[in-house]
Parts: sequence; structure tokens; C-alpha cells
Amino acid sequence: MKNNKNLSRNNEYMVYGINGAESILSSSRCRVVNIYISESFNFDLIKEKRLNQFKEKIEILNKNQFQNKFSTFRTQGIVIYFTYKIFSELDLKGSKIINNCFLILDSIKDPQNLGQILRTAECAGVDGIILPERRSAKVSNSAFQVSQGAFCNLDIIISKNIKYSINTLKENGYWVIGLENSIESTLWYKTDFSGKIGFVFGSEGEGIRPLIKKYCDILSTIPMNGRINSLNVSASVSAILFERNRQLLEKK
Amino acid sequence: MKNNKNLSRNNEYMVYGINGAESILSSSRCRVVNIYISESFNFDLIKEKRLNQFKEKIEILNKNQFQNKFSTFRTQGIVIYFTYKIFSELDLKGSKIINNCFLILDSIKDPQNLGQILRTAECAGVDGIILPERRSAKVSNSAFQVSQGAFCNLDIIISKNIKYSINTLKENGYWVIGLENSIESTLWYKTDFSGKIGFVFGSEGEGIRPLIKKYCDILSTIPMNGRINSLNVSASVSAILFERNRQLLEKK
Repeated sequence: MKNNKNLSRNNEYMVYGINGAESILSSSRCRVVNIYISESFNFDLIKEKRLNQFKEKIEILNKNQFQNKFSTFRTQGIVIYFTYKIFSELDLKGSKIINNCFLILDSIKDPQNLGQILRTAECAGVDGIILPERRSAKVSNSAFQVSQGAFCNLDIIISKNIKYSINTLKENGYWVIGLENSIESTLWYKTDFSGKIGFVFGSEGEGIRPLIKKYCDILSTIPMNGRINSLNVSASVSAILFERNRQLLEKK
Repeated sequence: MKNNKNLSRNNEYMVYGINGAESILSSSRCRVVNIYISESFNFDLIKEKRLNQFKEKIEILNKNQFQNKFSTFRTQGIVIYFTYKIFSELDLKGSKIINNCFLILDSIKDPQNLGQILRTAECAGVDGIILPERRSAKVSNSAFQVSQGAFCNLDIIISKNIKYSINTLKENGYWVIGLENSIESTLWYKTDFSGKIGFVFGSEGEGIRPLIKKYCDILSTIPMNGRINSLNVSASVSAILFERNRQLLEKK
């Protein structure tokens, strides 16, 4: 977009492109406000039936109008404005009985990382993401865009108090595992990731804050084999979540 | 940077920030050309001894000069121009005897993804990365920047012919594994990743090209548990490489 800020609206999010659009149109978590489509849009790329349900929200713009409004990015000719329900508290009532999984992201600063983590978490079958109200990348157009529609299938909880959320998980039978390179940490694949799990990941530079770390039931770590010793947090999330999936498949 | 292009120089790369700088200064793969340092730079952040070896290459700029030259990005007050040796052919002579690992990236288009893959690969102990000359993100300042110095500890081979490179690996006892969601694919953790391995990853949208796929000894896949079904290639690399590390540790 020429300038993302000029295009952003209060209390509404904006996502462009086919993948994001399809996810939003089929998600009960999103309420579509407007759909802008370029007249050059290839309707074969999207499930038209889905689009038909939102007829009254669609505005077709001619190529120039569309380009003027949404110039720079690769929109693939479709832009959606929508509202999205973010939770302020963990609600574990409707949750699956076994093998639920939440990520607690303590102070992830970079919206790109947040978006990538949402995407990986959805692909790995995570149920929800808990973010602190402060000291965290905001849930934003950028994070949603990067996530490729993943937010549509995840509960996002913005918690006023991460310690309180961790306790809520514990009271509901969750095992809380902090990912941290520490002398007390167990090797990642030797840590039992099955059952109800809350994974805590810390910030890109500093890891999990000490006051959060002591709320974890156990610490787990992936040793590095290189010299730079600095795995991106979203890469670390991927390694951990698919190790969890391996353990679940092995136990079947 | 105001405009990366204006700052780029022929046959030289540019990286900013402490992590990248430290890796370059200690790498035999890089030849330092210039080091620009802001007078406000915090010398405590970098191993000064390392910097002392390059005294004649250092130019200290006052705050204004530095800001004018390198304005936008978070340089942390240090910018290095350097040359970096890229290989045009696989040279397997000096390589470790067991458990070597190369990544073959077939048509990765996004320099951010390339940079993240370099970073994850280094952390996981990979020996080198093979890229095709065409149909690939270029080895560029952006990819190097994102990699956080990882390229300093990896061999990067830009191959004129990926099939030829795969054959070279095979002739040297490597087992070539394509990551691909296909009916013939083995579950990732049931595929043997030990020994000399070449992993082939395909492009973000289309996967491995058919003509490359048939050169693979085996195909392996990570099933998705979500609905969007679109794991980023760098997240997939992370899941695979740390599964390899798990297998290697389990065999010890």
C-alpha cells in the first residue's frame, strides 16, 4: 500500500490477496466490512460461491481506481476490510479434551515474526495464541498479512496479565513449558509435549522474562550446532511444534 | 538505508549491526573493504580486539555524516562493506566425513525467506546451501542482513545446473531427500536423516520442480494439522533440520 496508515481504519483490519481473502470469507471469527476488487481480478482464483454471500459488501473498482487506492503491494486484485474478535480472557470451556495447545508469546517485538508464528502455529494445529497487552508486537494488518489467513483459525488472546493466564492454563490441567536455553532445560525431544500444553516463547533478544519463567512447569531447549547461536523465534516455534506433532503421532 | 540501491557497490556486500559485523570480522569467507562507524557507537558491544585488526579500514563518521549516509535502518552505528566468496561448484574434498548436510533450494523467490533459511541452517549445523543460478532469490544485502551473519559460516554454491549438483552429491555418498507433500512421501520423522544428506526444498508456491524431484532418492513430508495448509518454506526448513538433529542425537 502507498501508505498503510492512510488505508487503515479504526477497529478494522485490512488484508489483501487470495489466501487471506479466502480465509476471512470462511471464518466465523471475522466480520467482513468491505471487499474491494479490481475489474481485472481473476474470479477463477477464488471460490466464487463464498464471494457471492457477500455481494452487498463488494465494490468493483476499475483498474485505475484500484491502483490509486491500493498501489504498491501485491494485492492480486482483492482487498478486504473486516473486524476480528480478539479475546481478553482465556476461555477454555469449549476446548478439545486432549492435546490442546496454546502459545504464550512473551514480548515478541517484530510484527513479521508474530505473523510467521501465527502461520506456523495454525499449520501445526495450535488452538490459540496468548500475547501480553504491553511489550509485544501489536495484532496489526502487517502481522495478519504475513500470517496468510492463519489468524482466522486461531483464538488470539491479549492478556492484561500473562502470569494470570498461565495460572488459568495450569488450573485447567495444562502443562506449561518454557523454551529457554538454560542449564536446567531438558532437551526438546526429551520433553513430553503430549496432552494439554502451553508453550512459552520469549522475545527475540532476551528470552523469557525471569518473572514469567518461574511460572513454567519445565524448561526445554534446542541446542544450536552453529556459531551464530541465534535462531529466530519463529524458526524455534516451528521446530518445537512439529516435534510436538511427531510425539503425538508416535503415541497413536 | 534510504535507498539500498544507492548504497550498494559492485561485487561488494553491505551488512549493518553488531551481529552481522562480528560474524564478518571473524570469517575467513569475507574480506572486509570498509567499516563505517558512528562516533556515537558503543564500542563495548563489539569485541574490540577483532575490530583492531581492521584499523586501516575503519572510518569514523560524526553523527550527522553517519545519519546522512545510512539513515533509515537500525545500523547500531556500524556498517561494513565486504566481499564474500560464492562457489560455482560443489567441492566436497575438505568436508567432514559423516553427517554432512547440504540444502538445495530450488527456486526460493523471496530474499527474506532465503535470509531466514541461511540463519536456521547455520544454527542447525548445515555445511552449505546450493542455489540455482536462475529462478532464485539473489544472494543479496537483504538476504545477508536477515541471516544475522549466518552466511559467514556456510558455503554458498550458485549452481549452473542443479541436477548436476545433485548428481555430484550422490556420487559422493549423499542421500538426496526432497521435501514434498505427495502420496509417495514418507512421514518426515520416519525418514532416515542421518549420514550425508542433501535436502531439496521447492519454491514457496509450487514446490520442487518435477524435473528436479525425480532426481531425489526419496520424498519426505510434514503433514499439516490446520486449514490454511501453507507452511512457510523457512518454517519447514527449521522443522526438518531440527528433526535431523534429533535423529543424530538419538543415534549417539
